[in-house]
Amino acid sequence: MRKTDRNAPVGVFDSGVGGLTVAREIMRNLPSEKIVYFGDTARLPYGSKSKETITRYSRQIIRFLMAQQVKAIVIACNTASAFALDEVRHEFDIPILGVIQAGVEVAAAETRNKRIGVIGTEGTVGSGIHASYIKKIDPSITVIGKACPLFVPLAEEGWVHDPVTTEVARRYLEPLKEQEIDTLILGCTHYPLLRSTIREVMGDEVRLVNPAYETAVQLGRLLEENDYTCEGTGPEEFPYRFYVSDLADKFNSFANSILPYDVEMTRKIDIEKYRNDRPGTLPEGPGQAE
Amino acid sequence: MRKTDRNAPVGVFDSGVGGLTVAREIMRNLPSEKIVYFGDTARLPYGSKSKETITRYSRQIIRFLMAQQVKAIVIACNTASAFALDEVRHEFDIPILGVIQAGVEVAAAETRNKRIGVIGTEGTVGSGIHASYIKKIDPSITVIGKACPLFVPLAEEGWVHDPVTTEVARRYLEPLKEQEIDTLILGCTHYPLLRSTIREVMGDEVRLVNPAYETAVQLGRLLEENDYTCEGTGPEEFPYRFYVSDLADKFNSFANSILPYDVEMTRKIDIEKYRNDRPGTLPEGPGQAE
Repeated sequence: MRKTDRNAPVGVFDSGVGGLTVAREIMRNLPSEKIVYFGDTARLPYGSKSKETITRYSRQIIRFLMAQQVKAIVIACNTASAFALDEVRHEFDIPILGVIQAGVEVAAAETRNKRIGVIGTEGTVGSGIHASYIKKIDPSITVIGKACPLFVPLAEEGWVHDPVTTEVARRYLEPLKEQEIDTLILGCTHYPLLRSTIREVMGDEVRLVNPAYETAVQLGRLLEENDYTCEGTGPEEFPYRFYVSDLADKFNSFANSILPYDVEMTRKIDIEKYRNDRPGTLPEGPGQAE
Repeated sequence: MRKTDRNAPVGVFDSGVGGLTVAREIMRNLPSEKIVYFGDTARLPYGSKSKETITRYSRQIIRFLMAQQVKAIVIACNTASAFALDEVRHEFDIPILGVIQAGVEVAAAETRNKRIGVIGTEGTVGSGIHASYIKKIDPSITVIGKACPLFVPLAEEGWVHDPVTTEVARRYLEPLKEQEIDTLILGCTHYPLLRSTIREVMGDEVRLVNPAYETAVQLGRLLEENDYTCEGTGPEEFPYRFYVSDLADKFNSFANSILPYDVEMTRKIDIEKYRNDRPGTLPEGPGQAE
């Protein structure tokens, strides 16, 4: 068993900038925790790729984060949580949380008519993972999923309050309204950025669940229970660290626009170096691109 | 100097399915040529990634295609042509064509008012490569570029004839109309799929240049001049071969929907194996996923 340093940082990863909505909730809700963030910007998006590929990418990233001496890892990406969490949890000797469990628990507790909607990428929705988790909590709940592939490019285009986005949202969400859901899980980390449009289309009577927030709460509980909570003072002592596999400057500006923290620098690393060609060997630290 | 077998296949690659519009033009216009196609579906899209990353990916793919004994390579992706062609052309001992040159030559020859528009991904348009090629042909031509990041996800969503797509196209293309261009280069391999919407917004007086077609013509000329043209009878003798880095079945259906050819099977390979960690060594053939 690995010896855990309670003052070590938490590792958080996503395919790109989306997971920053999770990092943001950790910063707000667990201000003394240190964070090492990785965004896989060279291989994003994850939503349209296979389970096998996403699991391989997740393993590489976990190897990288473990080389940064983190004490726990949050997979801040719904697709990777859906596809890879169950496998990597058994392969690595470190607590690993996904973003799906926490949102699902809250949704199951809050629905009154037992009809829950889930929106996300093709990969997340196609995996049916939310439904399988919810059925374990309460088999009488009906779960209706809907993939919304244009939401991420619309959010990244910045068309957040825009008639085109409203029309796209109307088209994606109308079938969920017809199914009379009373609770909707925002099953992709970008979607909180489109929250007001989703709210407008769904109406006030539907409760929107934001798994980013719920995951931060769950992480706090995990650290508490295991006596892993940091004794430090947060970013003054240890600045949040950001790594990506491509386009560090672009990531850095986006991070600064949504985080309650001044991100000075994002470093680019070569994540493919963390392939496990030779089992048992790990690169020494952040590598250089080829 | 490598000895070239005139009956060897041509290698064609793209980040995904987009380059199939180029493969389709080669099939139609050079029916006796054999084709090995690679789509980098595990790492798509290329349009929002850096020059350095795209060049690294392109090198891996060229190594893979050379291991398939191709006689020439077509980079059927505008972003990779813009970012990687100049470098890889000097690094590998094989003729390599991009999709930019041919389209640019036709556009420069056909414009009357010397005002050409270029639409493509952020990477392609941001690189300014069309303008720099066109200025070499005729410095008096004005080139106006416009990135259209939602066109690829809209085409892949299948919303090809759709009011949402028309509205998005109107918003992207209106500034080009105001600039009074008379020629428009479809600078992304997906865009021919949205041709009728683009035509509707731009009007009949603007000439649309499809670089996929022009590249097939240029490839024919290159093979002819070098005495490389195939003596075979095409796919009856040697079925077109398709490889991807992820989701072979999904690729296979899309390929069947747009190609004038029955694609029986698409094989998935592990493209990261073609990294050049140890210069001078090449994997033996298509690898297995990790």
